[in-house]
Order: sequence, then C-alpha cells, then structure tokens
Amino acid sequence: MKIRVGISGYGNLGRGVEKVIPQNPDMELTAIFTQRDINLNTGVPVYNLKEAESMKDKIDVMILCGGAVKDLPEQGPKFAALFNTVDSYDNHAKIPEYFEQVNKAAVNKTAVISTGWDPGLFSVMKMLTGAVLPVGESYAFWGYGLSQGHSEAMRGINGVKKGSDGKGLAVQYTVPSEKAMEAVRSGANPQLSVRDKHLRECYVVPENGANLEKIASDIKSMPNYFEPYETIVHFISEEELTANHSKMPHGGFVFRSGDTGGNKQIIEFALKLENNPEFTASVMVAYARAAVRMSKEGSCGAKTVFDVPISYLSPKDSATLIKELL
Amino acid sequence: MKIRVGISGYGNLGRGVEKVIPQNPDMELTAIFTQRDINLNTGVPVYNLKEAESMKDKIDVMILCGGAVKDLPEQGPKFAALFNTVDSYDNHAKIPEYFEQVNKAAVNKTAVISTGWDPGLFSVMKMLTGAVLPVGESYAFWGYGLSQGHSEAMRGINGVKKGSDGKGLAVQYTVPSEKAMEAVRSGANPQLSVRDKHLRECYVVPENGANLEKIASDIKSMPNYFEPYETIVHFISEEELTANHSKMPHGGFVFRSGDTGGNKQIIEFALKLENNPEFTASVMVAYARAAVRMSKEGSCGAKTVFDVPISYLSPKDSATLIKELL
Repeated sequence: MKIRVGISGYGNLGRGVEKVIPQNPDMELTAIFTQRDINLNTGVPVYNLKEAESMKDKIDVMILCGGAVKDLPEQGPKFAALFNTVDSYDNHAKIPEYFEQVNKAAVNKTAVISTGWDPGLFSVMKMLTGAVLPVGESYAFWGYGLSQGHSEAMRGINGVKKGSDGKGLAVQYTVPSEKAMEAVRSGANPQLSVRDKHLRECYVVPENGANLEKIASDIKSMPNYFEPYETIVHFISEEELTANHSKMPHGGFVFRSGDTGGNKQIIEFALKLENNPEFTASVMVAYARAAVRMSKEGSCGAKTVFDVPISYLSPKDSATLIKELL
Repeated sequence: MKIRVGISGYGNLGRGVEKVIPQNPDMELTAIFTQRDINLNTGVPVYNLKEAESMKDKIDVMILCGGAVKDLPEQGPKFAALFNTVDSYDNHAKIPEYFEQVNKAAVNKTAVISTGWDPGLFSVMKMLTGAVLPVGESYAFWGYGLSQGHSEAMRGINGVKKGSDGKGLAVQYTVPSEKAMEAVRSGANPQLSVRDKHLRECYVVPENGANLEKIASDIKSMPNYFEPYETIVHFISEEELTANHSKMPHGGFVFRSGDTGGNKQIIEFALKLENNPEFTASVMVAYARAAVRMSKEGSCGAKTVFDVPISYLSPKDSATLIKELL
C-alpha cells in the first residue's frame, strides 16, 4: 500500500511537492489543502485548510508547505497533533522554540521539522563533517541563487517600476565569492567577513525617467540586506527581466576543513539547483517517508534531520541498500 | 565517564585511530592489540591480539583496523561476540555475506561494519542523494590519490628496483578526469566508460640499465589494474620517490545529477585528503561513538552507516545540535 500524502499550502513549495511525488512510486498524493482558491486545476481533491481534520485517517503524512513566519508557528503544532508531518521551518534562531511547540503537540504522531536544504541537508553535512573532523573549521556559502527576501527588500524602493501585480520589478542573486571558496579549499582556514564571502547582484527595472544613481544608492545602503556586502546593480528592461530572470535557481556549499594532526582533510558539499522550491520539496518528500516509518515504530514527537537513520529516506529495504550502495 | 576505546591491528589505520582519538574529548584509548611486536612506543598498554577476550569488560568499543581480505573475515565476527565494534570492511562484493556473519555473532553487542569513506561516507552520500532525487544518475570518482593495490601490483614487475625492505619502488596515483567531472557537473548525465573516468599515473624507480620501455609496457598491459585505463609511467630516482611520494593522499567525488521535471538539480560531495588512513580512522572513531550509544539502547547486531542516526556521531546532545547546527 502506498504512502498517502497530503500537501498543506499551495505556493511554490506545495506545487513542487505535487510535481515530485510521482517520482516516488511508493507514494500517492491524496489531497491538497489551501487557504486560498480551492478551484485548482490539479488531479487530486482540493480542500480548504479548515477541513483537514476530517481527513486525518486518510492521510499518512502531511507535508506542510507554509512559510516559517506566517504559517508554521500556528500550523506546525496544530497539524502535528493530527498527522505525521514534515516541514521546512527555516527561521534558524527560533527553531529550538518551534521544536518544543511541535514536540508538545505531536503526542501520537511523528513530526520532522526543518527539512529541506538549509536547514536540512546543510545541517546534516555540518553535523556529520564536524563529528568526523572535530578539529577544524566549518564554512557555508550560498548561491549562485535567487534570494526571495533580498528581492522583496528592493521592490519597495522609489523609482523601481511596478509590475501588473503591483510588486516592484527587481530580483537579487546571492553570489558566493570564488576567491573565498578557493581559500577554504586550500585548507588555509581563512577568517572571512560577511563581505568576503558573498556579493549581491541586483537586476532592477526602473520607472521611466527615474534617477538610476539614487535607486542604486538606496539599494546599496540598505542595512543588513545590502550595506554589508559588495552590491552590483544592473538596470534592465521589463522584457529582459521576464525573459532571463523568471527562474528560481539556488544552491550553496558546506565545507569542513579539518586537520588530523599535521594533515589537512577537506570535505566539500555543493548544491547547484535549477529550481530551489522543487529541490526543497524533494528533500521534504524523502523525509515524509521517514516520518511514516518512525511513526509506525512508535517513535513519536518532534524530530530533526539529525534523528533520522538515513535508510529511512529510501523506499528500498536494508538488504538492497547494503548490496547496491554500501 | 569517557568512552573506553580499544584498537585491534596496528598498521597505518590503527596508528591513525591512535592519533585522532585525543581530538575527541569524550574518548580515551585504553589498549592496543596487535599480532606483531607488542613492544611499541605508545602511551597505552599493548597486548597480543589473543589476550583481547580478557579485556572485554574494560573496553566499550573495539575499533577493528585489520584488512578486509586477511583479518576481518575472522576478526569481525569473533570480536563482535565480545565487544561493540567498528570496522572498515571494504570488500564491496562480499559485504552482504560479511554483514550476516557479524550479525550472527553480535548477539549482545553492536557492530557497525564498513565505515570509513568508501564504503562509509560515500555510501551515505549515494543513499541520501538518491533518495532525495529519485530520478537521476549517480557518479563516483576516486582520487587524486595513492592506490595501495595498484602500487602493489607494479612492484613485482621485472626491472623495478627493490627497496631495502625487498619491495619494489613504485607508486600509483588514481587521477579523476576533470573533463568527465565537468560533464557530470553540467547535468549532461554522460555515459562514462572506465577509461573516461580515471587515468593512472605511475612513478617507478628502475634498476640500473633496466629496459624502461619494457617496464612501461608491462605496467600498461596489466589486465584489470592498468590495461583498461590511460596509464602514464614516469621513471624517477629513489631519492625523488622518497622525497615526493611518501605521503598517502586520496579523495574522491560523489555526484547525484537529478531532474525534478525539467529542472536539473546537481549534488556534489568531495573529499580532498592529505592522509587517507587518518581520515578513515576519523570516520571510524565517530561511528565508534554511535556504536556505544546504540548498544546502550539495546540495538544489537550488525549495523551499517545507513542505520545510524547521524546525531549519534556527535558528542553533543540533541538540544545543542539543534541550536548550533540546524
């Protein structure tokens, strides 16, 4: 019998989950729950989020595709009381608090929080490599990739043209510094400032006759978002933005630069993603499989990627994994 | 109380374990067991391997540093009946059989087999990335690194100078093809032959007056070892061999090139190791910590890297891991 999956939240991430579930023959998508329009053109039943409770015996695991700021603080604990769940809660500073809240609610269910790639696979890599090489330095870099938060931050600036949806036409890419990464790869264990590690590249559609210098300076001086970084601003046409900047690439790097007593040992983990939400969705789907298995074993409560034996992510049985992959 | 570690086997790997244990403040080295000379200049008691049984209450985990061909088929099951164990059994084709034998013996103990980096971390990466991106191709490359097996294979060839220990003076490095790796990184999912993926670079000290062409041709035509590859043979002096080729670097790459429905998603994991046995030892030590923890929980029998929740590799508690690394 297939694992019956529910999706709660139907933005980019929810649509990503819907798209990748058919790549997993042991799973089927049972229902989509959304707060918005339930008249979606999908092959599965769509319900209002409020109806979720009535489906609790028909869904083995609910993949929570809401955001960490608005949706998950409420939905995480609420759904963990009813379903096995997986989420991608990514508000790093508040994860311990969120873990506690979900853990209290998940009395009879298994809830794997903060999956995806950061937190998620990046956390796995930092933990694993730090345990293997206890003497050393860890580094993380992000990009080349589109940052939703930084793009959003630029959109309200005066002189940035508004699109048909009323939002400013501007995107920002986070670019890891090749020079800084080469220094890490060399085993030099460099001290790197925020400015050393990344630069920010912006593509902005200006209003007719806007003061381009002023826009660029307003972006570059924005505290936290842009001010600490080298920031490059390109002005482009709306057509060019649509043609070349409508995708959602992302990625990043985790390094562990260790030393086993005079010998350098470097571990590098890299992601190069053409579609960030679909990759995050793929990771969540694998952890959804693990959540169901842990639940069957009676391992209830909130869990993290650190708690999951990695074999639980695979549909293959132990003997097959040993034979094919060990 | 610290985890009391025993080392069985005192070659390169055993010495590596001895060297890295002090990097782990929650562990202490209790004893070394060897079949050879027990008059070693170490800070810990050294015993003959036969005396191990008498130490079974004084050691929490035994790290088996013997080889997969000669030592482990006998020692693996034997020690797993007495101790929690970790090994680096790397005879890939026979792992399922070895697992069964160790599993039968480890009635009251936990035995984590086939750790290290290949098998070991490479297996973890193949499994994890394959589960996350079920549609795609996996690739592994090895090197740049010294291959003991290939070096050994050259040493018997006629005309290769013998060193003071009677062994031929020759080393071989496995070199991954940058071109092939770039093709994988591009997401092209190339079909790669054995010859496409690696080349073999040999450094050989010839006897005085030896026929160099004959030596090179004897190496290049050796079936399985060299014949399927592009092989480059350099002739060097004994001094040069000692000065430049006495280290044990190694490394490699695991790639998953996936597709989430029209979008390429590339994962790369890379190791660049100045000292192969010390890195393997470091991985084994982390899994030794996990073996002790699983044993305390009553999870007996043979285990693989697929079975171990990665948090068990760390000396830090769950709350700390969540706060610092998630």
